[in-house]
Amino acid sequence: MGFKKAQKDVEEWVSQYTEGYWPPLAIISRLTEETGELAREVNHRFGPKKKKSTEENAEVADEIADVIFTLCCLANSQGIDLDEAWEKMMQKLRTRDDKRFEKK
Amino acid sequence: MGFKKAQKDVEEWVSQYTEGYWPPLAIISRLTEETGELAREVNHRFGPKKKKSTEENAEVADEIADVIFTLCCLANSQGIDLDEAWEKMMQKLRTRDDKRFEKK
Amino acid sequence: MGFKKAQKDVEEWVSQYTEGYWPPLAIISRLTEETGELAREVNHRFGPKKKKSTEENAEVADEIADVIFTLCCLANSQGIDLDEAWEKMMQKLRTRDDKRFEKK
Amino acid sequence: MGFKKAQKDVEEWVSQYTEGYWPPLAIISRLTEETGELAREVNHRFGPKKKKSTEENAEVADEIADVIFTLCCLANSQGIDLDEAWEKMMQKLRTRDDKRFEKK
Repeated sequence: MGFKKAQKDVEEWVSQYTEGYWPPLAIISRLTEETGELAREVNHRFGPKKKKSTEENAEVADEIADVIFTLCCLANSQGIDLDEAWEKMMQKLRTRDDKRFEKK
Repeated sequence: MGFKKAQKDVEEWVSQYTEGYWPPLAIISRLTEETGELAREVNHRFGPKKKKSTEENAEVADEIADVIFTLCCLANSQGIDLDEAWEKMMQKLRTRDDKRFEKK
Repeated sequence: MGFKKAQKDVEEWVSQYTEGYWPPLAIISRLTEETGELAREVNHRFGPKKKKSTEENAEVADEIADVIFTLCCLANSQGIDLDEAWEKMMQKLRTRDDKRFEKK
Repeated sequence: MGFKKAQKDVEEWVSQYTEGYWPPLAIISRLTEETGELAREVNHRFGPKKKKSTEENAEVADEIADVIFTLCCLANSQGIDLDEAWEKMMQKLRTRDDKRFEKK
């Protein structure tokens, strides 16, 4: 399971349209844009101006989902299996990085 | 299921250490860094210099996983349920944006 | 000369207000946001959808200026002299990187 | 003067080589990468781990210069005059945004 559902949701949505996935550099540009929108939300909530109530997580959550959608577009367009990539990363963290931080 | 496993993997890894989750703006800074590393990989493979073989997806996949790890840190630290955020976004896409692109 | 005028313009503008410069991580968050807005403009003009006329440079120019403004905030808040940093970088390019690319 | 010198330095450096300026989306990808490197430096110095001495501004300054270099590549490749863009932005700040913050 894991990321399979998200990758399949994106594939089903994109495959309805004639446009298809964008080329990789255009997806990176979109990712930069979406990352920027998430940064703005987080800065509004937790930054020096802190105008937002501490209860409003919804907009931050929305922006995280948009970033993941863009990452799924890149993964799908290149035939990348995110569950496999995730397990490989967690494996590396559990071995290589195990001693980098102070344990409880 | 969906993102639950990834969020749990991150929680288990972080909770081993005394440091805990970083404050939101520090996580955004890390996200900017990880997004930059993904951009570099994609530019190396698909950009104007194209030094990399078209078969090497592994490094792009690794960098995507690192970005998702950072997003899970932000979500976990703020009590955000990514499955919920994802379903909300997909629902919006399926309704509001349904007519934005040319259908097949 | 060089960047002195830009740094001074920013200093004069910021020093009018009680708020002052943001802390470094908040400026990075803003920088991520502004970089994202520039990415969006460039993707609109040069990306796969290319809705914009090839004559419209104004919006890209505006977004570049916004990114530089944010960089000047970071530099000013940390007492960084951008002319000095620029000369150091150009010097490094002219020596270390001189043989990295094919000369005309 | 202002940004003219920086734009000219970049033009002289790039024009030595056969490669020329990259296409806009590849420059954005590089910009995302350079912004990420700046974010890492700032997070190292001012973030939760703060391993770096508070005296080390040099690396942050280096990374800011790298970001500006990339912005000059984008501007030069599109015939954008950064001094003009800067003045237009400062003019807008001085008029439109004049009342947005609390004056001293």
